[in-house]
Amino acid sequence: VEEGDAHIASTVLVEADLRGIVSHGVARLRHFYVNRIRDGRIVARPQVQMLTDTPATAVIDAGGGLGHPVSHHAMSVAIQKAQDLGVGFVAVRNSNHYGIAGYYATMALDHECIGMSMTNSSPLVVPTFGRVAKLGTNPIAVAAPAGNEYPYLLDMATSTVPAGKIEVYERREEALPEGWVIDGDGEPVTNAAQAIEHRRQRAGGGHLPLGGIGELLSGHKGYGLALWVEIFCALLSGAPCAYETYASRSAGKSRPSQVSHFFGAWRVDQFRPVKEFKATMDELQRELKDAPRIEGQSRIYVPGEKEYIEKDRRAHEGIPLNQKVVVDLQMMAEELGMDFDL
Amino acid sequence: VEEGDAHIASTVLVEADLRGIVSHGVARLRHFYVNRIRDGRIVARPQVQMLTDTPATAVIDAGGGLGHPVSHHAMSVAIQKAQDLGVGFVAVRNSNHYGIAGYYATMALDHECIGMSMTNSSPLVVPTFGRVAKLGTNPIAVAAPAGNEYPYLLDMATSTVPAGKIEVYERREEALPEGWVIDGDGEPVTNAAQAIEHRRQRAGGGHLPLGGIGELLSGHKGYGLALWVEIFCALLSGAPCAYETYASRSAGKSRPSQVSHFFGAWRVDQFRPVKEFKATMDELQRELKDAPRIEGQSRIYVPGEKEYIEKDRRAHEGIPLNQKVVVDLQMMAEELGMDFDL
Repeated sequence: VEEGDAHIASTVLVEADLRGIVSHGVARLRHFYVNRIRDGRIVARPQVQMLTDTPATAVIDAGGGLGHPVSHHAMSVAIQKAQDLGVGFVAVRNSNHYGIAGYYATMALDHECIGMSMTNSSPLVVPTFGRVAKLGTNPIAVAAPAGNEYPYLLDMATSTVPAGKIEVYERREEALPEGWVIDGDGEPVTNAAQAIEHRRQRAGGGHLPLGGIGELLSGHKGYGLALWVEIFCALLSGAPCAYETYASRSAGKSRPSQVSHFFGAWRVDQFRPVKEFKATMDELQRELKDAPRIEGQSRIYVPGEKEYIEKDRRAHEGIPLNQKVVVDLQMMAEELGMDFDL
Repeated sequence: VEEGDAHIASTVLVEADLRGIVSHGVARLRHFYVNRIRDGRIVARPQVQMLTDTPATAVIDAGGGLGHPVSHHAMSVAIQKAQDLGVGFVAVRNSNHYGIAGYYATMALDHECIGMSMTNSSPLVVPTFGRVAKLGTNPIAVAAPAGNEYPYLLDMATSTVPAGKIEVYERREEALPEGWVIDGDGEPVTNAAQAIEHRRQRAGGGHLPLGGIGELLSGHKGYGLALWVEIFCALLSGAPCAYETYASRSAGKSRPSQVSHFFGAWRVDQFRPVKEFKATMDELQRELKDAPRIEGQSRIYVPGEKEYIEKDRRAHEGIPLNQKVVVDLQMMAEELGMDFDL
């Protein structure tokens, strides 16, 4: 991988660890990136192509390469268009897993823009009333600048929980709440190891969209949000939908996973002076944080705040890494003939 | 109200009834519109002002008038900008309730655009871990064109359920599921009449964001989505946030409610030929509808499909109106010295 590309990819992974989103950090280096580069599913030195370029929009073909560098590029293009014109939107096709969605959305903040980032992903989520995974966990991230408070940062899978959370519960040997995963008959799965095994065997079932099973608690809304992401990422860029991505795996072949992304930037001052906007962002946040709390709850958070607090702490105290992850990083370094210092 | 404005407002209300969203149809005519015009909370003949107008963005002051005509105008401006430039975004402040969010999003479909519409609303939803309503049910609507299938139309409150659904359960004397409403102590309310009474008395508590109470089923995501809407509607347009809107009511005074909206349009052909896009929209829909279903479920829907089916039916068979609604319409006509024919 070109050094510049490697630098961006590692920055995004470390940023996830800094924010405490350990499921998306360096722990994924082997399975999501190194192995896939080695077996040809990710193209190490891709030909990235601008397919369409209009004043406000662009479509980029990632050439089957790592998701992070092309996404960093695409978001930069969206921000540049916003600088020139007020808003900018870029769809990316033929890419791979891009790490945390929020990373790209927050790139807009340095330019006094609101940022948006979405990606589809391998089929893991069932449509409402369905019992086979057809959609990805398809995250949406939106970031907006504030003044003295942390920026607003929504970074959410459109499923009840992201895939990584099941692994966390498995390690802790904790039961899954109902509303996260169903089996091939549509019944709730509460055993985390079983949920992971079903996924491996492609035994049907899958994650539930935000809102859970059926329509009682509005699972159809999470399903609708996942489709929104699918339309903006795959359909606008001309990429396969989630249920067609990673199709290679089941056939035992090594083809690129064909993930697609969508990025957007809105320049705040095209609507309102930045200073006013930021002052009201601060007010809004304080109003929410000072609101009366449910007994036993120590505070009300604003989206992104937990991660920003964690980042401040870890930037000073360091990032605690799971021992297994450290051993794995060390082994990878040996396999690849690289230095590894702790 | 000017005839043109009245025509738009009534069209949006009837469209809600056509789509089977009876909670947002003519049943609301008296309490949401006529009464508020009569007591001065809605300005009958407002001065609508374009405050900002850039190639891709605009901000409009609705002058305290009806939400529907200014929203129709704002979405038309967004679509015109998309025609000229590829994309367009318009924020509206100093407005009132605009009916169904989906109406404005679908206006984009006739122009081969993807449409988006959001609005904040009176404070009804608690932030995660909070026990006092600070946010509106803040709906998001997104519409995308298809070929032979119905368009995709997501039109969702970012709370578990919209306010109107509680009234439906009250009329049916059915218990509310846990996860919809909490009381001032943060405890679930399952008695619909009680939930409505709490709201009337501003006794604390309120609707839960999509995902329900706390973080277990990701209620913080619904809360984050509601804030997204608040930021795009109120903060970009320079309007008060939900918790400041309708403040007049508690003071017993009659001031405009200060609701704000946000509209967007993306021209599909700026990314990809429209024909290709629509063909894959059809494929995606068929893939989802043909997916294996949970036992006992007769079909899998695509967002908007239920409402389009209902609209087709009601356009032919007519709209069944609740007898109480008919009597109320008749009384209003008498009060206002208007003809009323059934």
